[in-house]
Formats: sequence, structure tokens, C-alpha cells
Amino acid sequence: MPANPRSARLSNLGEFQLIQSIPRQFTTQGFRPTVGIGDDAAVLPLSPEQHFVISTDLLIEDIHFNRKTATLYDIGYKAAAANLSDIAAMGGTPTGMFVAIALPPSLTKQDWQEFYRGLAVPCKPYKVQLLGGDTCSSLTSLFITITIIGLVKPQHILTREGAKIEDLIYVSGTLGDSAAGLAYLKKLRRPPKPSVLTKTMKYLVQRHLQPTARIALGQLLASQPYASTTMDLSDGLSGDLKHLCQHSHVGALIESREIPMSQHMQHYAKRLQANPLDWSLHGGEDYELLFTIPPKWQQEFEMKAKKQRIPITKIGAIQPKGFGIRIEQSNGRQKRLYPKGYEHFAQ
Amino acid sequence: MPANPRSARLSNLGEFQLIQSIPRQFTTQGFRPTVGIGDDAAVLPLSPEQHFVISTDLLIEDIHFNRKTATLYDIGYKAAAANLSDIAAMGGTPTGMFVAIALPPSLTKQDWQEFYRGLAVPCKPYKVQLLGGDTCSSLTSLFITITIIGLVKPQHILTREGAKIEDLIYVSGTLGDSAAGLAYLKKLRRPPKPSVLTKTMKYLVQRHLQPTARIALGQLLASQPYASTTMDLSDGLSGDLKHLCQHSHVGALIESREIPMSQHMQHYAKRLQANPLDWSLHGGEDYELLFTIPPKWQQEFEMKAKKQRIPITKIGAIQPKGFGIRIEQSNGRQKRLYPKGYEHFAQ
Repeated sequence: MPANPRSARLSNLGEFQLIQSIPRQFTTQGFRPTVGIGDDAAVLPLSPEQHFVISTDLLIEDIHFNRKTATLYDIGYKAAAANLSDIAAMGGTPTGMFVAIALPPSLTKQDWQEFYRGLAVPCKPYKVQLLGGDTCSSLTSLFITITIIGLVKPQHILTREGAKIEDLIYVSGTLGDSAAGLAYLKKLRRPPKPSVLTKTMKYLVQRHLQPTARIALGQLLASQPYASTTMDLSDGLSGDLKHLCQHSHVGALIESREIPMSQHMQHYAKRLQANPLDWSLHGGEDYELLFTIPPKWQQEFEMKAKKQRIPITKIGAIQPKGFGIRIEQSNGRQKRLYPKGYEHFAQ
Repeated sequence: MPANPRSARLSNLGEFQLIQSIPRQFTTQGFRPTVGIGDDAAVLPLSPEQHFVISTDLLIEDIHFNRKTATLYDIGYKAAAANLSDIAAMGGTPTGMFVAIALPPSLTKQDWQEFYRGLAVPCKPYKVQLLGGDTCSSLTSLFITITIIGLVKPQHILTREGAKIEDLIYVSGTLGDSAAGLAYLKKLRRPPKPSVLTKTMKYLVQRHLQPTARIALGQLLASQPYASTTMDLSDGLSGDLKHLCQHSHVGALIESREIPMSQHMQHYAKRLQANPLDWSLHGGEDYELLFTIPPKWQQEFEMKAKKQRIPITKIGAIQPKGFGIRIEQSNGRQKRLYPKGYEHFAQ
């Protein structure tokens, strides 16, 4: 903690700490959300059959994206996918979107149209509609805020709270692909034409620029009381697992050899002499789901996921809080897992 | 129109024109809002008794506010008031808020707390709760996006469409106070201490920095089929009346001598040798309501407004579209009223 917290620079404080300090300022009487600040999204009760689930994301040039590594189409696509992923993490069905955008003077109408063209693509399968928004000029960079709305059945809303000791920890898909794709894009310094890329680089770049929200998995997890917790992986496994454990007041043990990694990512890591495990543990923006399942549901859940062809991998188990968060290395030794993921202000 | 619209700079296009070009990119099947893009807020059907009303506003440093003329407390207060005003303009009851904020490195934790302290004040009477949001660092300026949610009875949702010829045009409160307050603050170049201000300047500064959303009036207008249209005055009467007429496909005649102006504003205009009518016609951010009432409801509505002590003034009447938008001057002559209000990109 800084010596004088009242005038502490925000750069010395983590986002999590800041968020924790807000809600007390507002009255907690009146209209009550079922799930509030700190989760992937807020849930507002509608009827006994359906609730609204709402989430807001801020995307800032040179922090969340860079026009040297992404086209406006890519930026729109990823903005939509990241928001759909928040709905997936709550087990919801996305329905509508609000877009607030501040445009620097250098952008043309064509850029603007490309942004919306990209934004519409991941929305299309779910018939997500653009409901409104706000458009302004920015004197500096491109700023985008997306608010997404979905519907969720109140019986099994997925949250970050509720993981119990011995629950099994799962992730979907493969981890670290997005970080590998970003590492490549940063070397290029401009968005590449897909046609000139090798199969490996095309895959990794696409995983970074055009991630897929795990809507079907979220809905499967919410269809029965399978999942005790669910969140999406935006900051990286190490950081997000820490958030999940904080919300559920538990510890965790994961096994490094179980962490799912794509052939493409491992291949590129070898080429760069990078450690693929670092990308998969600490690389953000995979937008896969991280979730926990009580052992009694393991068999039924795994069978249904297989039937729906949703790739999932068991990577560990929940432990008592005092255990902390540890990773078992390939040599069988355990060590503490510290987040190296992206935390705003903390860098 | 520019010669080559495909590469047209956004600065040559109005926001209204841009917004008109988006929604076609998204599917219009599936989940349907009752009121969509272009109105103060979108309305989502919930049940036969209640709908959600949702609005998003973007506030950008040096465009919507300036830290030379407003404290972080003021910025938070006004951000909340402006969003509450969007709900008022739909006849809704505000219930919850999402705040996405990008903070430049120069801000301290104290500034951040001041922002939330200000934000909470106009929310308190309505028990509006902070439901969630996103916090990031900004390399440049302070950016704020607020998404506000309210509830509205579906019978009489207030929109910008539906004004008929001969409907009477009303505004609430007095117009131009905010513009006068801003003119004063710009001269000062730093936020003044209220204790050193004269009564006039205190009033005008407060009207600019701490406007009041007309929630009670919105609810009165929505309680019966009184209003054929309603919107809030954020861009200035001349610009907002144009939007209202565009949405309703009508023209309008307003009378300059009927436009309500405060003594304080007229006093300050005299001191500056400024035209008070210019501030009241073209000055933005009054956050009063502009609405139209069919003649048959005039008496009943005016009586109820008087009973509730809500200040309203009839300023004109709706005309056929071909009439355009005109103002009758104090000499009895009519002239066309052109917007000089704030339009993003168009300046």
C-alpha cells in the first residue's frame, strides 16, 4: 500500500481493488440485481422463467488493441466476441448490444463501416441486435464501450462464487493461442493478409483477432446444476483462476501436463524458443471458459460435452483456501502459481 | 456530401447520419426492441406490465467536459444527471447503472472517489444502483460511458415519433442557463468555489454542472396518453426540435417571446452584451424536456403539472412538414430556425 492512500496514484492500485471500493457509495435499497459488481455480468430479475444478464466492456486503443496489429474489422469482431463471451460465462443467450464509440479524426467512414461489419459477424448466429448507442469524436484515440444484454434462466445462473473443495476444474478449447498470435502480430507491425500466412500463423492470428465465445458450453453448463462456478478467460488462466478462487474463498491445484495447448501454438513457441506453458498460463484473451464441476456431475457432464463436440479438459481440482493456488509441474513438484496476466493500472 | 463518400472523413458527417447507416448491418430477426436506435433510449419488452428502458452515453474529456471548468465530483454528478434525463425522456423510472471508465495516469484515487461521490448524488432519490462496469487506464484523456436501465409501463412509452399537426409544443424549466453557466466557467478557467460566487453566477454554474433530470415530468407525461412525443434537451432547442420533427415527419412554429428564460440568465447576458435568446435556442445541456401535447389534453395536462409544481411552458405548435421549422420573432415576423447546437464531427 502507498504511504498516503488518499492521494494514491491509480497506477499503484489494481482494478479489482478499485471495483471493490465503489458499490458502498450507492444505496443498496430498492431494485436489486441477482448478481452484481465483480462478476462477468449483472443479472436483473425479469420473471420466474427469465432474467436479463447485462455486461459492459471498455476497449481502448493501444491498451486493448492496436491499429498496427488489427484492422477496424478485426477490432469490431473481437469487441463483439469478447462481449458475447461475458454472456457465455453466465450461461445466457445474447440478444442485444449497445455500442458507444469515440472516433479520432483520422478515421474515415469506411473504417467506421468496417468496424460495424466486423462487429456484426459473431453476432449473426445468435441474432443479436444493435439496440442503440452513442457516437462522438475523440481528440486522441479510438475508445469503444459495448454493453451486451442476454437472457438467462434463473435456475442455474453461472457465477464465480460457489466452488467447493474437490470440485473439478475445467477449461474449454486450448489456451495460449491468442498470446502466441499476438506475439507474431507484434513482430509484423501491421495487420497481415491471411492469404500470405502459413497454416500455423493463420490459426494463431485468427485465435487472437477472432476468438469464439463459448455460448453453447455456457448454456450446457447452465442447463443442469453442473457448474459450481464459471468465468471466461480474458486475463489469462493464472489471473482468472485467482479471481475465481477469491470469489469462492477456496484454493486450487492444477496440473501443468493437463493444460490443453494446440499443436500450432507449441510449434510456434519452439520456433521462438519461448515456453508454451507461459503463454497458456499467463496469456490473456483466449475467451475460453474456466469452470468447476462437482465430482458427482463429472460423468454426465463430460458425456454431454462430448456429444455436443465441445472440447473441454479437466486441469485440476479445488482445494481449501489455505492451500493457495498451486501448479503441479511435469516433474511432480508443486509450486505456487502467481498471476502474470494483464491487470490494468498495475503495469 | 463529399465527392468520395467511401473515404469521407467522419468529421464531414453528422452523428445522426452515421447512426442512420448502422442498423441495417445487423439482423432484424429475433429479439425485437419496441423502440430502437435514434431515440433517447431503447425499450425491451419484459411483460405486459413492464418494459426495460436502456440508454448509453459517452462522455469525453475536452469534448463533453473539461477539468478546467469541472471537478471530478461535478463530472460524476452531470454524467448521472444526463443519463437519468434519458430515462425521464422515455417516461421511465431509473433503476440501475453501468459505468465504464478509462482513467488517465494523472488521476488519483481521491479523484476517482470524487467522481463516484458526485455520480451517486442524483441517483439517490431514485435508489438507482450501480450494477457493474469496467475500469481501465487511458494513455490520454478521461473517457466515461454510462449505461442506464429503467422500467417503464408499456402503455405510454414516450418517443420522438408521433407528433401530429396542431399538437402543442412545450418545454420544462428555463432554457439557456447551462450555456450561460458554461460561458462564465470558460472565463474562469478553473472550477470556482460556490462560496465566492454571486447568487446569479451560483445559479448558472449549478445549472450547468448539476442539471436536474425531469423524472417526475416524464412519468406524468407517460401516466396518460398526454404526450405525442418527448425528448430531452441535450443539444439545444434548435437542434433537438429538428430531431423531433425529423422523427415525426412534421414541421414546427415556435414563438420567441414564449421561450422561458431565467432572470439570472438574462441578467448575465446583459452584462456580457450577449443575446439571451441565442443561449436559450442553441445552448445545449439544459436537460429539460421538449414534448408535444394534442390540444384535447392541454387543459388536463397543464392542471396536473401545476398541481405537481412542475414548471412547463407552451412555446409553439406542430406544423405540416413542408412548413419547416420556424420561429416567430418579437416583431411578429417568422424566420427559419436553423440548429446551431452541438453536433459531433460537424464542427
